[in-house]
Amino acid sequence: MKKVLAVVVLVFSFTVTIHAEDGYRLWLRYDKIDNPVKLAGYSNAISGVKFIGNSKTIELAEEEFLTGLMGLLDKQIPVVSEIERDGVVLAGTLNNLPELNQLLSNKVDKLGEEGYLITEGKLNDKKAILIVAGSDIGVLYGTFHFLRLLQTQQDISAINIESDPKVGIRVLNHWDNLDRTSERGYAGFSIWDWHKLPDYLIPRYTDYARANASIGINGTVLTNVNSNALVLTEQYLKKVKSLADVFRPYGIKVYLTARFSAPIEIGGLETADPLNEDVRNWWNEKVKEIYRFIPDFGGFLVKANSEGQPGPQNYARSHADGANMLADALEPFGGVVMWRAFVYSADDKDDRAKQAYKEFKPLDGKFRKNVLLQVKNGAIDFQPREPFHPMFGAFTNTNVMMEFQITQEYLGQATHLVYLAPMYKEVLESDTYAKGKGSTVAKVIDGTLQDYPVTGMAGVANIGTDRNWTGHTFGQSNWYAFGRLAWDHELTSSEIADEWIRMTFSNKESFVEPVKKMMLESRENTVNYMAPLGLHHLMGWDHHYGPGPWIKDKGRDDWTAVYYHRSDDEGIGFDRTETGSNAVSQYFPEVRDKYASLESCPEEFLLWFHHVNWDYKMKFDRTLWNELVMRYYDGADAVKGMQETWNALKDEIDNERLERVKMLLKIQRDEAVWWRNASVLYFQTFSKRSIPDGLEKPDKSLEYYESLKFPYAPGIRPTW
Amino acid sequence: MKKVLAVVVLVFSFTVTIHAEDGYRLWLRYDKIDNPVKLAGYSNAISGVKFIGNSKTIELAEEEFLTGLMGLLDKQIPVVSEIERDGVVLAGTLNNLPELNQLLSNKVDKLGEEGYLITEGKLNDKKAILIVAGSDIGVLYGTFHFLRLLQTQQDISAINIESDPKVGIRVLNHWDNLDRTSERGYAGFSIWDWHKLPDYLIPRYTDYARANASIGINGTVLTNVNSNALVLTEQYLKKVKSLADVFRPYGIKVYLTARFSAPIEIGGLETADPLNEDVRNWWNEKVKEIYRFIPDFGGFLVKANSEGQPGPQNYARSHADGANMLADALEPFGGVVMWRAFVYSADDKDDRAKQAYKEFKPLDGKFRKNVLLQVKNGAIDFQPREPFHPMFGAFTNTNVMMEFQITQEYLGQATHLVYLAPMYKEVLESDTYAKGKGSTVAKVIDGTLQDYPVTGMAGVANIGTDRNWTGHTFGQSNWYAFGRLAWDHELTSSEIADEWIRMTFSNKESFVEPVKKMMLESRENTVNYMAPLGLHHLMGWDHHYGPGPWIKDKGRDDWTAVYYHRSDDEGIGFDRTETGSNAVSQYFPEVRDKYASLESCPEEFLLWFHHVNWDYKMKFDRTLWNELVMRYYDGADAVKGMQETWNALKDEIDNERLERVKMLLKIQRDEAVWWRNASVLYFQTFSKRSIPDGLEKPDKSLEYYESLKFPYAPGIRPTW
Repeated sequence: MKKVLAVVVLVFSFTVTIHAEDGYRLWLRYDKIDNPVKLAGYSNAISGVKFIGNSKTIELAEEEFLTGLMGLLDKQIPVVSEIERDGVVLAGTLNNLPELNQLLSNKVDKLGEEGYLITEGKLNDKKAILIVAGSDIGVLYGTFHFLRLLQTQQDISAINIESDPKVGIRVLNHWDNLDRTSERGYAGFSIWDWHKLPDYLIPRYTDYARANASIGINGTVLTNVNSNALVLTEQYLKKVKSLADVFRPYGIKVYLTARFSAPIEIGGLETADPLNEDVRNWWNEKVKEIYRFIPDFGGFLVKANSEGQPGPQNYARSHADGANMLADALEPFGGVVMWRAFVYSADDKDDRAKQAYKEFKPLDGKFRKNVLLQVKNGAIDFQPREPFHPMFGAFTNTNVMMEFQITQEYLGQATHLVYLAPMYKEVLESDTYAKGKGSTVAKVIDGTLQDYPVTGMAGVANIGTDRNWTGHTFGQSNWYAFGRLAWDHELTSSEIADEWIRMTFSNKESFVEPVKKMMLESRENTVNYMAPLGLHHLMGWDHHYGPGPWIKDKGRDDWTAVYYHRSDDEGIGFDRTETGSNAVSQYFPEVRDKYASLESCPEEFLLWFHHVNWDYKMKFDRTLWNELVMRYYDGADAVKGMQETWNALKDEIDNERLERVKMLLKIQRDEAVWWRNASVLYFQTFSKRSIPDGLEKPDKSLEYYESLKFPYAPGIRPTW
Repeated sequence: MKKVLAVVVLVFSFTVTIHAEDGYRLWLRYDKIDNPVKLAGYSNAISGVKFIGNSKTIELAEEEFLTGLMGLLDKQIPVVSEIERDGVVLAGTLNNLPELNQLLSNKVDKLGEEGYLITEGKLNDKKAILIVAGSDIGVLYGTFHFLRLLQTQQDISAINIESDPKVGIRVLNHWDNLDRTSERGYAGFSIWDWHKLPDYLIPRYTDYARANASIGINGTVLTNVNSNALVLTEQYLKKVKSLADVFRPYGIKVYLTARFSAPIEIGGLETADPLNEDVRNWWNEKVKEIYRFIPDFGGFLVKANSEGQPGPQNYARSHADGANMLADALEPFGGVVMWRAFVYSADDKDDRAKQAYKEFKPLDGKFRKNVLLQVKNGAIDFQPREPFHPMFGAFTNTNVMMEFQITQEYLGQATHLVYLAPMYKEVLESDTYAKGKGSTVAKVIDGTLQDYPVTGMAGVANIGTDRNWTGHTFGQSNWYAFGRLAWDHELTSSEIADEWIRMTFSNKESFVEPVKKMMLESRENTVNYMAPLGLHHLMGWDHHYGPGPWIKDKGRDDWTAVYYHRSDDEGIGFDRTETGSNAVSQYFPEVRDKYASLESCPEEFLLWFHHVNWDYKMKFDRTLWNELVMRYYDGADAVKGMQETWNALKDEIDNERLERVKMLLKIQRDEAVWWRNASVLYFQTFSKRSIPDGLEKPDKSLEYYESLKFPYAPGIRPTW
C-alpha cells in the first residue's frame, strides 16, 4: 500500500515539473529520451524497481529513480517486491541485500563509505541490474549515476561500474552574508533566507541538496569566509539546524565559518587568544552546543589573519595554535577545521605570491590530524591563469586541500561563458615533483602522495537567487564540473562537458560537438582577452569588474595592478626568479628550474615569472609586444566565433535558454573588446609601439576607459 | 499565414506554462475550467477570435486572449478573418472597426483613452462578442477583463460592460536601489538587474508588465524615493530605456525618482537652487535627454526635504519652487511631477502628524498643473491604522494624489497574511466634508470633487525577486487589490478578494468562502495584535520588524515609540485635541468635532486623538486597560483561527502553496503572540494593572522581548 502511494505522488510530482525552460532544473531534467532506438532499448532492459532500506536517503533514491525513469522513458516502471522477471533494478546496501553477499562482498568491501557498484547479476535465475553500496548515500550516488547513463544515452548492456570518490570532503564554500548579499556572487543574492529560517523552508533548499548530491558534493559551508560571529549564536544555530535537517538525507554536511574573535564578539570575553583557557573553554562549549543542534556538523572553515580578519597572530600565536584550538573542540565529534592558507601581510613587503608558503611551511607537522590547510589553486587569487600554488606537495605532515573558485570573480563574473574544468584540470595535473616525476597536485589532494588522513576539495560557489541558479546557464557547467572532479579528478574536461551538455541541453551530436568545442576553448579565450602570457591582477578596483591595468596607489601595493604587471619602457612582467622575488625557489627543483629559465618557462606563465623586454622574440618570431597584442585580439575575436557557433544552433534547443545565452554572449563580446582595447591602449603607453597593421583600432581613448565607473557592480562585500 | 504561425507559437507557450505551483503565475493562471457546465457554456459561446489592429499592444492582446482561451477552455479557438458564424470575439479600436461605428460610437466616445466596452452585437447577421475601445491599450484591458470573467466563472450571456479608470495615473512605486537592495522590500531583492541592463532582458520584465496591465496599472517608478542621482546619467538612462521598451506595449510608462541635488552630484554645478538659471537649464537639458531615450517617459517622483533628502528648502525656496522647476522641464513632453508631501522637520517640535498639512496648505494653488502632491493615506507613515490624511480635501487648486503602501512595512512584512483592501477602502470611503457630506477621499483622488486636471494613485510595491513575486502568496492579493482599486475605487474589498481567490487558487465555494472571510478579517486582526485602538508607531527600531513600544531616546522624538503612545501612570494615547497638539483642527469641522470628542471619536482612533485614563469605560463596560489587553489577545487568537481555517483546506489546492502559507501562518501566529506579550507587558509597566483572568500569561519577560536583536532583518536602507 505504501509503495502504491509513493508512485502516485511521484506521478504528480513529475507532471508538475514540465517547466518553462528557465534553467531551474539544471542537469536533472529527465525529459523523454529523443532517440527511439535508445528509448526502446532502455525500456526493454528495465522492467521493475526494488529499493531496499528504511532510511530517508533510500526513500529519496527510489523517488529520484522513479521520477527519472518516468520522465526519461515516459513510462511508469513498477515497483516490485520480488525478482520474478529479467530487468529489475535492485538497489540497496549489501547489509540489506544478504542474497548478494557472495556475489559482491569482495567488491563492496573495497569501496569506501560513499562508493557504489552498478553491475548485473542473477537473482532467482533472473537477470537484474544491481546498484549496491556500503552505505545508503552510496546507493543514492549510484542511482544518480545510473540515471546519468540514460540521460546521456550510454550503453547499459553488460554494465559494470565501480565508483568511489577520490577526495573525502567535497564541499561548496558560499561567500554569503547574513543579510543575503553574497561576496563575489553574481547570480543574484544568497539563497539562504536567514530571516525566515527556521520556520520557512522553501523547495529550493531541497533542490539545492539534490543537485549537489547528484554530482557527489557532500558538504556546504553556508557562510562567508569574511565571517560574522552571529551565525554561531543560538538564534542562528536554530536556522542552521533547519537547513542541515533538509540536507542530511542527501549526504550533505553543513559547515560554518568561524570568526576567530567570536569569543569576544558574542562570548563576552576580553580576548580570543587560542592559548587562553577561557577562550578554549568557550569554543569547546560552543562546539558542544552546535552538535546538540546538528549532530553531524562538518566543522569550521576559517579565514584568519588575512585581509583584516582576526586570527591567532593578533595574540602573537601561530596559525597552528589557532587551528588546533578549534580542532581540539571539534575532534570528539568528528568535525574538521579547514584553515585557509590565503594570507599575505600588510607589513611583509615580499612578493605576495610567496607569503602563504613562507607562513605555513614552517608549521608543517604542527597541525592536528583533523585540520586541513585550504589552499587556493594559485598563489595570488583565482586569476584567469596562475601556476599551481607552491604549497601543493610541500606538506608531508599536514593535510592540504584544494580551494577552487567556481564563481567567476576574475573570469567575467556571471556574464561570460567560461568553462572552468580545463583550468581545474591544468592545476590538478601539474606535476609538483614533490616525490619525483608524477607527483601531481591531484595526488597531493587525494592524499595518495603524502598519505593524508583527511582529504578535501572546496569550490567557492556561483549559486544565487537567479532562477537558473548561476546567472549564466553555462555557469551551471562549472558547478557541475567542480563536483564531478572532486569525486574523480581523472575525468577529462571533455568528458565532463559532454555529460553536462547532454543532460542540460541535448544529445544531438549537431549540438553537443560545437558546444563542447566552444566550452573547451572558452577559458583560454578569456585568458587571452583579460590576462595573456601570465599577466595577472589587472581587474577593476574593488568590484573586480572589467579591466583596470592602471590601478595604482591603493594603500597596499599588492592590491594594485601595477605591482603585478610592472610595465616600464623596457618591458613587462614580474621577475620572480633569483634576480627578482625568487618566488620560483618555493617550487621543487624541477619545477623551479623550468619556470626560472626564460627559455623553458611556458609562454602562458612568461610574465608571471619574468620581466621581459617588449622586443623579446616569442614563438613564430613575434616580438613580445606583438604577441601580447595578438593574444588580446585573438581572445576578443574568439568570442565573436562563440556567437557564431551559438547562433547557428538556434533550432537545436528551446528558445528561452537560447536567447538568454545569446544576450550574454553579446555582453561577453562587448566586454572582451573593452578588455582588449583598454589593456592594449594602456600597455602601449609603456611599450610605445604600435598596434600591428590589420587590427581594428580601439574606437575609444584610454582616458575613456579609465573614466568608467561601476559603483553598483554586484558581488562586493557589504559594509558591516 | 501570419495568423497560423501565431497560433502555433501560442500553443507551445501554453504547454510550457504548466508550472510547478510556485506562485509565479500570480492570478494569470488560465488552468482549465473545472466546472463542466461552465466550460461547455463558454466553449459554445466562443467560436472564433478576431483582433484588429497593427500595434504590438494588439498583438499582445490577441496572444493573451488565445493563450487564455487555450488554457481555460482546453481547446484551440480559431483565429478567423470573417464573421461567418455566431460567437466570434471581435476586438479592436473603433477606428479599426468602422462597421461598428453606428452601433457603438456614442458609447466609445464617452470612454476615456483607456476605457473599453465588452458587449454583444450583430455583424453579418451573426452574434458577436465585441471588445471595443478608443485605444489599443483599452483593447488589452478589455481582453484581460473578459478573461477574468471566465477565470472567475461569471455569466457571459448578454454581456454588457463599460469600464473606464477613475484615476489617471495608476502607478507602482518601487523603493529599489541601484545595488538591488529594496528599502522596505521583503520579497527578496529588486527585480531590476541594473548591472546586466540594457543587454540582458529577462522574461520577468515582460511578466511584470503583463501582470500590471492585467489589473490596469499604467506606470512604474523604478527607483527609490530615497534617490540616487546616478539613475539620471546616460549610463543608466540606457538601462531605463531598455525596460521602458519592454513595458510600453503593456501601457506601462516609466517614471524615475529625481534627486533634487542631481545638478550638483552628476551635473557638476555648485547649487541645486530651483531659481538658479543654470540649475533650471540643467534640468531642462536632462529632461530632453531622457525623452530622447524614452519618448513616453512619465515624469519624476520626488522626496524632497524629508528624512535627509535634499530639496528646495536647502536654498530657502518652497516646495512649489522645487516642484515647478521640474514641472516646467517636463511640461513640453507631457510629463508630470509627483511631489511627495511626506515631510516633517527635524526642527519643528510640533506634532509630526500636523507638519505636512502646515507645510503644504499655504502653497495650494502655487503648483503647476502637471504637479501632483503625493500624500500618504495617513499623516504619520503607513501605520496599521491611521485616520485619513487631513490634506485630502484641503486642496482646491493643487492636484492631490494618493500614496498607499502595498509592501507591509508595518503590517507583518512578508510573513503575515494581511489583506489590505479593507484598509485602502477605509481611507477612500472616509468623508472629508470638504464640500459637505459625501466628500469622500475617493472623490478627492479621482478629481471629481475638486476638478483636478490630473489624478493619480500610487502603491509602494511589494514585489521582489522571490519566485512568487511578493514573498507571501497572499501578498499578491495586495498588489492585485491596489491595481483594481486604482482603476475603480467603488469595487468592494469582498469583490476584489473574490476575484483574486478564484483566479489565484480555486473557484470552489468551499475554498473561496472561508478564505475570503479570513482575508477580510485579517487586517483588523493585525491591527489588534500590533496597534489596537488608534495606537501607532510601536515597531522595532530601524528595520520596523516586531514590537518596540519601548523605543525612546533616538535623537529625534518623533522617531521613537514613546512619542506616540505617551503612556504614563494615568493613561495612554496622544492628545491631538485642543488640549494637546490640536491636530484635529486640520480637518473640516464635521470631522474635527467627531474626532475631538472622546464620546464621538470612534474607538479605532481613540488613542490616536486622545490621552485616555487606564480606567476609562469603553463599550461593554470594559476599562481601557482591559479592552486594550483584550484586543491584543483577540488579535493573536484570530491568527490561530486563520491557521485552523487554512489547515482545513488541505485538499482544496496544490500542496506547494498550501504548505508555504501554512509555514507562514505559523510564523504569523508566533509573531502575533510576540507582539501581544511584549506590548501588554510593556504597557503594564505604566498601567500597573493585571492581565484579566483567563488569559494565557506571557511566558517570557519584558526584558527578554526588549533584548531581541535582528540586525539582518530585511528591508533596511543601504548605507550609501
